Amino acid sequence: MTNNTFVLRGGIAFSEDKNRITTYYRGYLVCVDGVCKGAFPELPEQYKDLTLYDYGERLIIPGMTDLHVHAPQYTFRGIGMDEELLEWLSTYTFPEEAKYANKEYAKKAYEYFTEDLRRCFTTRGVVFGTLHNEATIELMDQLDETGLVTYVGKVNMDRNGGENLQEADAATSLEATREWLSAIEGRYKNTMPILTPRFIPSCSDDLMKGLGELAKEKHLRIQSHLSENKSEVAWVKELVPESTCYANAYELFDTMGTAEQPTIMAHCVHSDEKEIEILKKHGAYIAHCADSNMNLTSGIAPIRKFLDAGIHVGLGTDVAAGSSMNMIKTMLITLQASKMYYRLVDTDVKPLTFEEVFYLATEGGGSYFGKVGSFKEGYDFDAVVIDDSKMFSMRDMSIRERIERMCYNDADAIIKDKFVKGKKIYTRME
Amino acid sequence: MTNNTFVLRGGIAFSEDKNRITTYYRGYLVCVDGVCKGAFPELPEQYKDLTLYDYGERLIIPGMTDLHVHAPQYTFRGIGMDEELLEWLSTYTFPEEAKYANKEYAKKAYEYFTEDLRRCFTTRGVVFGTLHNEATIELMDQLDETGLVTYVGKVNMDRNGGENLQEADAATSLEATREWLSAIEGRYKNTMPILTPRFIPSCSDDLMKGLGELAKEKHLRIQSHLSENKSEVAWVKELVPESTCYANAYELFDTMGTAEQPTIMAHCVHSDEKEIEILKKHGAYIAHCADSNMNLTSGIAPIRKFLDAGIHVGLGTDVAAGSSMNMIKTMLITLQASKMYYRLVDTDVKPLTFEEVFYLATEGGGSYFGKVGSFKEGYDFDAVVIDDSKMFSMRDMSIRERIERMCYNDADAIIKDKFVKGKKIYTRME
Repeated sequence: MTNNTFVLRGGIAFSEDKNRITTYYRGYLVCVDGVCKGAFPELPEQYKDLTLYDYGERLIIPGMTDLHVHAPQYTFRGIGMDEELLEWLSTYTFPEEAKYANKEYAKKAYEYFTEDLRRCFTTRGVVFGTLHNEATIELMDQLDETGLVTYVGKVNMDRNGGENLQEADAATSLEATREWLSAIEGRYKNTMPILTPRFIPSCSDDLMKGLGELAKEKHLRIQSHLSENKSEVAWVKELVPESTCYANAYELFDTMGTAEQPTIMAHCVHSDEKEIEILKKHGAYIAHCADSNMNLTSGIAPIRKFLDAGIHVGLGTDVAAGSSMNMIKTMLITLQASKMYYRLVDTDVKPLTFEEVFYLATEGGGSYFGKVGSFKEGYDFDAVVIDDSKMFSMRDMSIRERIERMCYNDADAIIKDKFVKGKKIYTRME
Repeated sequence: MTNNTFVLRGGIAFSEDKNRITTYYRGYLVCVDGVCKGAFPELPEQYKDLTLYDYGERLIIPGMTDLHVHAPQYTFRGIGMDEELLEWLSTYTFPEEAKYANKEYAKKAYEYFTEDLRRCFTTRGVVFGTLHNEATIELMDQLDETGLVTYVGKVNMDRNGGENLQEADAATSLEATREWLSAIEGRYKNTMPILTPRFIPSCSDDLMKGLGELAKEKHLRIQSHLSENKSEVAWVKELVPESTCYANAYELFDTMGTAEQPTIMAHCVHSDEKEIEILKKHGAYIAHCADSNMNLTSGIAPIRKFLDAGIHVGLGTDVAAGSSMNMIKTMLITLQASKMYYRLVDTDVKPLTFEEVFYLATEGGGSYFGKVGSFKEGYDFDAVVIDDSKMFSMRDMSIRERIERMCYNDADAIIKDKFVKGKKIYTRME
């Protein structure tokens, strides 16, 4: 028996499926060797000898997955938000990312990113670095140290970059990618590489094709951006005139992935039926980034349509177009966005329920990592313990009501402990 | 010289007008007898003998005005948010407000409301109580004690209420209102009564007319709700068939106010050109409640149109349909809402800028109280001192950038001190 074996007691909530949250007041959660053995209203006999940690009135929910976040953008989050995507990239983002050529700069900035990620609701993340190998390895080193489980990508971009933020050509970018992969081979316990073409406008046809081949050769996954902004969509049509839509451009370069190696596409705000079909066919994951999509005036992605089509969906904070790594705040904005899509765009597309959004933030994105994001038996034991006692109420609140209230009042939900695969990776100092 | 006379030093930001934020890094703010004498990059000679409090790198901004908040709803904020307005009122709100018949219950619940209002960015508020006189006086007593400046209303409702939440008839409601006004006459320094018909569906024609007359007789202001939800708008048309629109129904009962005694109308999500004209004609204030309007799937109010028409607009948190009294979070959601109105409803209606939303949160609503919400000369000295040092950045940030960043990352903006009319009413304990 390892110290990844124990019982937690508290107010438990997790998604049974996307329409149902199971809760237990003062229930029990069993973790054996980092794997969840289930949640129970009464502790089963066979676990009665395990060490029990009683969290009293506190809440215990599954760790959350941030399916799309840009680490080098973290330290300038929340500024320039009156701009739209392409202007924001050239004015704020590209000049900042260029600074990560300096390893010392990267080290310092990534320390802030990594430490804040360790302290928030996120237990799993899929992360963009920059195009710089050294800085990206530094980021991976730091993340691996935390115990968070992440995919991290060295970014590829060989066209339309900023000053000092572009690789010379496809061959150079591909070669750098191979070097990066060699350098980190066998280096990490918790951190995996993911191929990361920034988006079609940043990557020549040759680079995209090369990355598609590399993914196959090395069994790597891919992450990128899709149909975020109307100007971007129009630009992609110019750049890849033979494509029938933006998603098809990725498909032409063999970068849309497979069910076994699913590609993550962030945004999909403007994805129509044709794109939905392509995403579905490849078993892709959509990283829905509602905060970002509102901040950059991109629009609102029709998430209910994606779910109805059976496409995998998780939530991304998309820092720094999203301004916070707080997944709870992201849940709130996801709910508000979906209500506005229903009210303003299409009353046939019903708003997401709280149950659905809780699912997306936990198991929806978590499933990208396997059996992750729930307390069902056999799932990795990722859990967050929360003190919500600052949110006073005059009534007895059910666990279900308390997690909804927390989502709408994120600032008053205090994380006490965080576990990943049964290992406690964060404890709040009082 | 009173102790309401001093100089503050820090990172100062305030609206010069709705399109311009004036900032001074390490600037000076002069307060004499509770009135602002201006903000300065260098301290003018004549103020050099005043006591100076140096806040170093901290930010100092004007106090914010919450133009629409329901005190009795505070302790159940953040639940039932999958409902729309009318269902939410009958399921959650009316049963809760009925409990305020019990004065002890009201006292305890209002203590939480009042204390949290004292600790947030708000220095001025316009507040709904319940229909109960005793509870409303308790609320006013508590608020007056804090030093916050507020209007508070005993609610009127003589039809379509909940179980135990309805006055018998118009005469009973009007009589209770007169009793309430008598009971508090001369009682407060900082707290003023405001007539508060809940909304047309809650008030019979006779009650509305009676309140219109009472407002004239006693020179009182009025607050209510207007065009929040489409089902509500349709209902009002049934209830007052002779009205040409919802705003006209208020007009028929003489409750739309005057420039000298402006009525506050919360929401105006579905107000068309006709309503805009009526609001403008009466010099009304619109309390824009973007958080609430998204949470209850009401829609998005066309604030740019109201501003272009020259109508007064401020922001309201509308707790508990809005889930937080944090005006900074309300600013973020206001920005996101206005961007989505532009993107999804009408691209001729440009999104609000950060400058405009900062203005709305400070002077926009503040002007309802007179010269309030800015650091221009002659304004009441309402100020909030903020520590934003938790938001690390790799770059030198301008004051303008720091207040934008704070708006997008409200959880990391820590209020250190709060002043109303030059009196320090809150200090954070370290």
